Amino acid sequence: MPNYKLELEYDGTDYSGWQKQPGLQTVQGKLEEALAGVSTLESPIYAAGRTDAGVHARGQVVNFFAALKPSPGRLAAALNSFLPPDIAVRGCEEVGDGFNARRSALAREYVYYIYRGGYPSPFKRRYAYHFPGNLDTGAMEDALEVVIGTHDFAAFSRRDEGKHSVRKVFEAELRSVEDELCIRVKANAFVWMMMRMLCGSLLEVGRGRWTVADFMQVMEGEDNSLSGPALPPHGLFLERVFY
Amino acid sequence: MPNYKLELEYDGTDYSGWQKQPGLQTVQGKLEEALAGVSTLESPIYAAGRTDAGVHARGQVVNFFAALKPSPGRLAAALNSFLPPDIAVRGCEEVGDGFNARRSALAREYVYYIYRGGYPSPFKRRYAYHFPGNLDTGAMEDALEVVIGTHDFAAFSRRDEGKHSVRKVFEAELRSVEDELCIRVKANAFVWMMMRMLCGSLLEVGRGRWTVADFMQVMEGEDNSLSGPALPPHGLFLERVFY
Repeated sequence: MPNYKLELEYDGTDYSGWQKQPGLQTVQGKLEEALAGVSTLESPIYAAGRTDAGVHARGQVVNFFAALKPSPGRLAAALNSFLPPDIAVRGCEEVGDGFNARRSALAREYVYYIYRGGYPSPFKRRYAYHFPGNLDTGAMEDALEVVIGTHDFAAFSRRDEGKHSVRKVFEAELRSVEDELCIRVKANAFVWMMMRMLCGSLLEVGRGRWTVADFMQVMEGEDNSLSGPALPPHGLFLERVFY
Repeated sequence: MPNYKLELEYDGTDYSGWQKQPGLQTVQGKLEEALAGVSTLESPIYAAGRTDAGVHARGQVVNFFAALKPSPGRLAAALNSFLPPDIAVRGCEEVGDGFNARRSALAREYVYYIYRGGYPSPFKRRYAYHFPGNLDTGAMEDALEVVIGTHDFAAFSRRDEGKHSVRKVFEAELRSVEDELCIRVKANAFVWMMMRMLCGSLLEVGRGRWTVADFMQVMEGEDNSLSGPALPPHGLFLERVFY
């Protein structure tokens, strides 16, 4: 029975996130509906990142076992014809039985976009958080360096009770591209809300409300009531998953 | 009585075009509603380009006379607070009485975007026409050169009876940017549907259905029943207006 790996791109605006939930429109739900037109699912769909409501993906990776064995190219084309226009399969391959999109992933990369233009842009409103005020990007870069390495990210997460929140950040980078600020973080995994709370805390530094030392203290204090406010989901993209 | 010039950006997806029409949602209608919260309009709103349903603008220019005299910065901020998120004022200034956004314009620049990726992109679906097939872009460039200069564009328009369709094209350029093809045309003015029919005809050349000579013959024949099919509105942007 073939194990298919899909790379997905989706505009999360109109979805209650990746994970299937009764009565809600979810990306997983739409993918299962599209698959029903092509083959029979013989396993759950495993996903590398359980993106929250409103979060986008340019490179979500999922896998599943299917009863029929269409070629990867035909499967991708068939799924794209059944999927709504805000979800697309951008790659499909058959992988070994041992591959699991979630457990086999070595790292995930998320990017948060902050749009800094003076007026609210109609073309960025769905894909970037609008913050027109001044920002000390040098201080933000210094704070972002603090997160690289292995840390307990309890301060920047709404973790489930009893689950640990130690994660390893491989890379963290701030880039200015035209009137956007892109915060890119690559880590072995992310705790729930980590990117949005981390970016909200970085914004406190950028606005001069916190020093880099304050940021470090909040992170090390592991108390999420001291975090900066979580930024809204629409600026966040699951960019890529590494295997 | 002050004469205000506004530069507007809008996502045309959810509008029946610029021009106010009873019972329909239009950009002009939304702007008039927003203005009602700020001042009293003492003239019609004049626009440089009457964009059709679904067409976007990055640099539409309009003007109007108003009863009150807020500073341009305050007027822009107030309008942006009243306008829906898919319409934004990106610039505002007070201009002389003689300025008319439509009559004073020396040139308009439109850009048509063709997305050439192999799968339908969730992030481009509202802003580019998806054409995944092969295209001979060299031949398209040659055809595009033919339109530069003063011509009767009757073949590429659905003109109103009795109105003339001679226009002067100053610049016409094809550019490839990553997986997009951008067709940029700057002309003194455009006849109705001109960009979409011109780009649809260019696509016939790109697909090898027409030679450049065929394209030239259709254009010179001035018979719009021989034009390539008009491309859909969502790939078209009113980019800039020149004064």
